[in-house]
Amino acid sequence: MMAYSYVSHLYCPKCRKTYRATERRQLCACGSPLLVAYDLDGLKAGWRADDLKGRETSLWRYHELLPVEKPENKVSLGEGMTPLLSLNAWGRDAGIDRLFMKDEGLNPTGTFKARGAAVGVSKAKELGVRALAMPTNGNAGAAWSLYSARAGIEATIVMPVDAPEITKKECAAAGAKLFLVNGLISDAGKIVAQAVANAGLYDVSTLKEPYRIEGKKTMGLEIAEQLNWHVPDVIIYPTGGGVGLIGIYKAFRELRELGWLKDDRLPRLVAVQSTGCAPIVAAWEKGLLESEHWPNATTRAFGINVPKALGDFLVLDALYKTNGCAIAVEDEAILEEQVRVAALEGAFVCPEGAAAFAGARRLKEKDWIRAGETVVVLNTGTGLKYPDTVSVDVPTLEPGDLIPL
Amino acid sequence: MMAYSYVSHLYCPKCRKTYRATERRQLCACGSPLLVAYDLDGLKAGWRADDLKGRETSLWRYHELLPVEKPENKVSLGEGMTPLLSLNAWGRDAGIDRLFMKDEGLNPTGTFKARGAAVGVSKAKELGVRALAMPTNGNAGAAWSLYSARAGIEATIVMPVDAPEITKKECAAAGAKLFLVNGLISDAGKIVAQAVANAGLYDVSTLKEPYRIEGKKTMGLEIAEQLNWHVPDVIIYPTGGGVGLIGIYKAFRELRELGWLKDDRLPRLVAVQSTGCAPIVAAWEKGLLESEHWPNATTRAFGINVPKALGDFLVLDALYKTNGCAIAVEDEAILEEQVRVAALEGAFVCPEGAAAFAGARRLKEKDWIRAGETVVVLNTGTGLKYPDTVSVDVPTLEPGDLIPL
Repeated sequence: MMAYSYVSHLYCPKCRKTYRATERRQLCACGSPLLVAYDLDGLKAGWRADDLKGRETSLWRYHELLPVEKPENKVSLGEGMTPLLSLNAWGRDAGIDRLFMKDEGLNPTGTFKARGAAVGVSKAKELGVRALAMPTNGNAGAAWSLYSARAGIEATIVMPVDAPEITKKECAAAGAKLFLVNGLISDAGKIVAQAVANAGLYDVSTLKEPYRIEGKKTMGLEIAEQLNWHVPDVIIYPTGGGVGLIGIYKAFRELRELGWLKDDRLPRLVAVQSTGCAPIVAAWEKGLLESEHWPNATTRAFGINVPKALGDFLVLDALYKTNGCAIAVEDEAILEEQVRVAALEGAFVCPEGAAAFAGARRLKEKDWIRAGETVVVLNTGTGLKYPDTVSVDVPTLEPGDLIPL
Repeated sequence: MMAYSYVSHLYCPKCRKTYRATERRQLCACGSPLLVAYDLDGLKAGWRADDLKGRETSLWRYHELLPVEKPENKVSLGEGMTPLLSLNAWGRDAGIDRLFMKDEGLNPTGTFKARGAAVGVSKAKELGVRALAMPTNGNAGAAWSLYSARAGIEATIVMPVDAPEITKKECAAAGAKLFLVNGLISDAGKIVAQAVANAGLYDVSTLKEPYRIEGKKTMGLEIAEQLNWHVPDVIIYPTGGGVGLIGIYKAFRELRELGWLKDDRLPRLVAVQSTGCAPIVAAWEKGLLESEHWPNATTRAFGINVPKALGDFLVLDALYKTNGCAIAVEDEAILEEQVRVAALEGAFVCPEGAAAFAGARRLKEKDWIRAGETVVVLNTGTGLKYPDTVSVDVPTLEPGDLIPL
């Protein structure tokens, strides 16, 4: 009889200290984020890729590789198993031979943030958490508010006043304690840190609890399964906090250890940022192990407006270890690409996803992406959440009018 | 070797005339919508429910029961196989024992309209259509614009100026020919009819082509599969044009003929409308076979603001034949239910979906829904497309402020 989860313990990627996964943890004593370890040897003995066939079409199909130990603690809105679509027309336009989009817009709350929230809130529930708090650029706060509502956990959310309007409404509808701040996500983070210290809330800021990354990891698991356990050459990810990229890297390493991958390599991981906020790109170009705070950060791709990510060293490590790269694109290119993807492929992607497409095009122009390679672009959310990025200038007719030719 | 599709022919539900499914058709010569027939006997001989296991997690898993004959004509963005979620907290609140929500918000374009567009556009492509046109309350136009873009078909879309803003932007991003009209969807319909007559466009108005309903039918196929081929007692559907309800009815009859259903009954189908536009309810209450045009139609649930549906007789037939009913709810109850579902279950549903929840609650109060019954509520789209239905009134802090206790 197999266990529902093969979670083993928590470990620090910096100082290697370990912790139990059965009690609440935030950061390591050394200040680093903690990661989740699994009993992969035990899992390997009894788990086959074929066992996934016929399982539920959500990220919980991979429950052995997730940290939730009891199925009754699962808090789900049907997240994950998003489509991996061939975008041949866009690929031709950009000169990329095999181009796939992983469309995270088809998640609850309309973004990949639902993955982190589903697993993070489920594990919080399992650990007995009654109240949590986080700073957010909008979408993570919306997702955690809604999943917390489903779990019966109280959520305190602080976001910049400039965050997408719709994400504020999602928090409000969910009944979260929502506060806006006249500043950036880093200002929201300081306010949350105070509230956590004063009121004993569970701090679910990016990477300050170890489980969100496990939810996002499932993007990597799905890409591999959807490619029938073949490994794409390149995966392109719009990078703010970078948890998705860290998660995808972790997924492919775990799959390699399980022996499920049919190719003997990892995908080259690419972090795409906006030229208005590109700390990871700057660090990668200099070969640094950590990024520096990006002053006066600004971009229309609001979800990747993160001037200094707590997990920057993990993102950079993933880029170096996979022979990946980091690239910055202008907001103008992002907005152009958003419309181009819609017009060529019928996919209305978010600006962050459009940034990844712009990055892909640039990397093909530079021949960093080579002929015949398989490239997966992550669209992290639906364009529906960003109505201001597209303008409509069309005629209004009166009843009985003819359409002008 | 089984065929990809078991489509047989088209037939008129009014005069019984039949047509071939290999050529473009709009309405029957008698003016009625046409329906699609399949070779169910042939299909029965070779197709088992178990064959679905491991198939792609989109509505195309049911391709034998869809009208597209060649897989290369499939135009897909990953639509369908949306989650069927247990909503126990909301169910308890409303006194309903087994309450499921089918969440159509997790489709491309954020609504169930993607199903009709995917199958409709695919079949249009198969039939050689190069340009199509439709009137819409917004969401269908958005979906058909985007799927048409993916298919390389030109779309002409006419919608009321009051349609949701985001749907106009989806059409614009897709490169559709979009026109607004200072009136209702019926005014848009007249403008489209003129354009169809003048320019020879393929008219994809609701039920004026036979294939959209086949896409929507898959909601019923999925509900049955997700309940392991058990039949729910009640399915509650927010009803404007009513194609979804007609499709679900058709799905259950086809499954019954295939012998896949484990219960010897059909679900009681419920049409929910707004008190501001309730022609189906009015007709059902009088036992009529068709509805009358609803004057001065208005509701915040814009997608069901349809004063007279072309398929009204098919909707009413489905209600009568399944011992279902029709019920109208006030806009106030709709908006209350939208927030209640978000706060209790973390699901941010659209106002139309909220109307279905309000209808479910009302029917339990009336004991029309009985103890122990299994009820499926259709949420037809994501709340993300209707930002105006939720208001946010929260404090804005300055950097360094504390959260007020």
